[in-house]
Amino acid sequence: MAYQGIDLLSTKAAGDDHGENSSYFDGWKAYDTNPFDLRHNRGGVIQMGLAENQLSLDLIEEWSKNHPEASICTPEGVSQFKRIANFQDYHGLPEFRKAMAQFMGQVRGGKATFDPDRVVMSGGATGAQETLAFCLANPGEAFLVPTPYYPAFDRDCCWRSGIKLLPIECHSFNDFRLTKEALVSAYDGARRQGISVKGILITNPSNPLGTITDRDTLAMLATFATEHRVHLVCDEIYAGSVFATPEYVSIAEVIERDVPWCNRDLIHVVYSLSKDFGLPGFRVGIIYSYNDAVVAAARRMSSFGLVSSQTQYFLARMLSDEEFIGRFLQESKCRLVARHERFTSGLREVGIGCLRGNAGLFSWMDLRRMLREKTAEAELELWRVIVHQVKLNVSPGTSFHCREPGWFRVCHANMDDETMEVALGRIHDFVRQHQQRRVKAERWAANRQLRLSLPHHHHLSPAHLSSPLALLSPQSPMVRATS
Amino acid sequence: MAYQGIDLLSTKAAGDDHGENSSYFDGWKAYDTNPFDLRHNRGGVIQMGLAENQLSLDLIEEWSKNHPEASICTPEGVSQFKRIANFQDYHGLPEFRKAMAQFMGQVRGGKATFDPDRVVMSGGATGAQETLAFCLANPGEAFLVPTPYYPAFDRDCCWRSGIKLLPIECHSFNDFRLTKEALVSAYDGARRQGISVKGILITNPSNPLGTITDRDTLAMLATFATEHRVHLVCDEIYAGSVFATPEYVSIAEVIERDVPWCNRDLIHVVYSLSKDFGLPGFRVGIIYSYNDAVVAAARRMSSFGLVSSQTQYFLARMLSDEEFIGRFLQESKCRLVARHERFTSGLREVGIGCLRGNAGLFSWMDLRRMLREKTAEAELELWRVIVHQVKLNVSPGTSFHCREPGWFRVCHANMDDETMEVALGRIHDFVRQHQQRRVKAERWAANRQLRLSLPHHHHLSPAHLSSPLALLSPQSPMVRATS
Repeated sequence: MAYQGIDLLSTKAAGDDHGENSSYFDGWKAYDTNPFDLRHNRGGVIQMGLAENQLSLDLIEEWSKNHPEASICTPEGVSQFKRIANFQDYHGLPEFRKAMAQFMGQVRGGKATFDPDRVVMSGGATGAQETLAFCLANPGEAFLVPTPYYPAFDRDCCWRSGIKLLPIECHSFNDFRLTKEALVSAYDGARRQGISVKGILITNPSNPLGTITDRDTLAMLATFATEHRVHLVCDEIYAGSVFATPEYVSIAEVIERDVPWCNRDLIHVVYSLSKDFGLPGFRVGIIYSYNDAVVAAARRMSSFGLVSSQTQYFLARMLSDEEFIGRFLQESKCRLVARHERFTSGLREVGIGCLRGNAGLFSWMDLRRMLREKTAEAELELWRVIVHQVKLNVSPGTSFHCREPGWFRVCHANMDDETMEVALGRIHDFVRQHQQRRVKAERWAANRQLRLSLPHHHHLSPAHLSSPLALLSPQSPMVRATS
Repeated sequence: MAYQGIDLLSTKAAGDDHGENSSYFDGWKAYDTNPFDLRHNRGGVIQMGLAENQLSLDLIEEWSKNHPEASICTPEGVSQFKRIANFQDYHGLPEFRKAMAQFMGQVRGGKATFDPDRVVMSGGATGAQETLAFCLANPGEAFLVPTPYYPAFDRDCCWRSGIKLLPIECHSFNDFRLTKEALVSAYDGARRQGISVKGILITNPSNPLGTITDRDTLAMLATFATEHRVHLVCDEIYAGSVFATPEYVSIAEVIERDVPWCNRDLIHVVYSLSKDFGLPGFRVGIIYSYNDAVVAAARRMSSFGLVSSQTQYFLARMLSDEEFIGRFLQESKCRLVARHERFTSGLREVGIGCLRGNAGLFSWMDLRRMLREKTAEAELELWRVIVHQVKLNVSPGTSFHCREPGWFRVCHANMDDETMEVALGRIHDFVRQHQQRRVKAERWAANRQLRLSLPHHHHLSPAHLSSPLALLSPQSPMVRATS
């Protein structure tokens, strides 16, 4: 959309690097204009594009009720109101940093320790990533990122800072694992183009894969970073959402135990409470850097996105309740694994596989066999059908810079059980209908082989009929069944 | 301070443009290492460099106690916990934007109206200024700012965005008023240097002057902006802290009533709750732009510094209580005027004048007559004495880019009455001692005239003796009296 007055803006503000004009936002628009509601709009679009954790918020709500002293707005806590309302030190409340450092260790099973003096606040992981980009690279310099990767990194890391993200291509044949060969290839490729590589950015657990990075790979990355004097930024915002084996390994643990010789000045962790706790509204992003100069610079930059002191105060109390946190993390994992199992087994019933994941709030769904052809265009065609006709806002792999078409990220922790069952039901119907059409089309094609004398109708070829766009019409029984 | 690992940082992060290595931070360091406390450290440094409003927080605390439903952490409000904790729409809670728009009108006496759809959140006024810089200008382009101006604008507007701030020189002879001549001179000067001027940035009420911009000047600015197609950013974060006549006029009112022909796409207002409410910890910054494209771009950028939804929820309820807000603003003004009167009349008792102010949390104190000579160096000498020996952390005019030496900003709303009296007492003692020394020095000089045959001791010249550095020793009675 072109606004009046846009000619008066800066190049950055007037440009499209924020990513919101991407066609991938069509799914969100479809959801926004017709959101599913269990009671009031059962025909609406179900939001499966939002990595949000609604499964365990009741536990936090309960804790909050039992701890009125944690709020500065209750009779029990209001004596702190003035002090907290006026608190603007960008170091943050000492008790908040202390509790956060302790909690970050607890989330990682006590296998790494965190120093409160290295905890820097920012406006969510969004702000944390941007701050690190500003701290670590100059405009035009680059970070390498294994694909598929979180699409908003392009906005978070690049839009205002002017740095570049360059892909490290990963592939399904080895479950999208990041190999040294792929890393070296991306690094060398960038240098051949004259681009200065300043670092590597990974998500561990991975968004969108829902997998974790193994210890050897982390050690390889830290070693590579040390040898090439490039930074290693590990976004660990799903560290508390690992719900099955293999056990989670944080870079914090690896540099303590496995590669103690690595250059810690190059290692930085991003954390947040948005995913593991389901508190994105609270805007808590954390930069944890082992580099003193980065801690100092990031803290200065944190003035642009400090956490509300009201929220710091509340969280300081909650996070330092170790018994509650232990119970919360345990229960949250149980609920995540149950949801994950139900969803992926539901998909298996109709022959849909997912990458084997053990973390996160989503699955990386393999619909390669449903593509008309192995192209990004075919993936987007299928995606539009899923969004507009199946009415599920899932996210296509291409939006994650995945080079292999046919993968989709499907979030399933941002809804209740019943909504998830509706979503699964829609997928079942869709797949069965797709199969029936394919069978029909194949029969038709077989018959056509017998009528070779007839003129050639390219637009009725079997390939066309198996195109997802042809599968459903707005009047299809499946769509009506849900309205 | 040089950190290990700093060579691995970006140029911006490793540089000094954040301003914290400026010598002006010495005053803060002096305060931090020895903070005054009425009961426990009466010899400490009193913080008068912090424009913080502690005078009326008890009213908000009281409101909070009486409105438990405004907190999502009380039995009365906890039913909203899940919805709010999960709320991450960067438009903000609709009720928050609505209440903020209504409140912004109320603060301006109902003489301007604000549209909730133009209210964009940011991380304090700090984040708001940076966001506008990113939106309105490219690196290397400039905004003109009348001097003296808030020192942290250099960080907020320039550090990460790369834009420049160029001074519009204002002078004491006309009470530092911004004239069209000064504006044109700065504008033409910039253009002669080949610098592209993208806008004008003012604070109204002015920080540090404590004065307001009159209607004619605002109309002149809007007209100039329209004629030259440059932006006009009005930082109005002290709009609710105008405590005496003349009445406050907002740019919002001027473009509605006085210059309706101006190009509104160029007009932007910054607001915050940090000053008028004394809630800097809550990190509420607001960008209110009349330009649709800026609203859209700034909203996208607000992802880097959203207000915590917990805080949005609380404030939405408080700000929409119009009766309370009316009472609060009235009472806050009464307390501000009382404090201002007591402080400035206390200064007058020892012959110290201030620029006649009617707004803000500070006074612009005139110590020109106490300077050894009319230079920035002499101002800093005097300042160091005030900080280290008088033990008041006031802010020297040079730190506000004031070209006329001898002015100091003194904050007086961030302390209780008793602390302010201690501060006044110290100033009284200091001035009297300064006067006594001067009289002695003059007598000595007169005597010296009679002993012309003696050798010349340059280091004992009267000028030297009247240097503030010579006035006090750590053992001076005044310093001990306060310990």
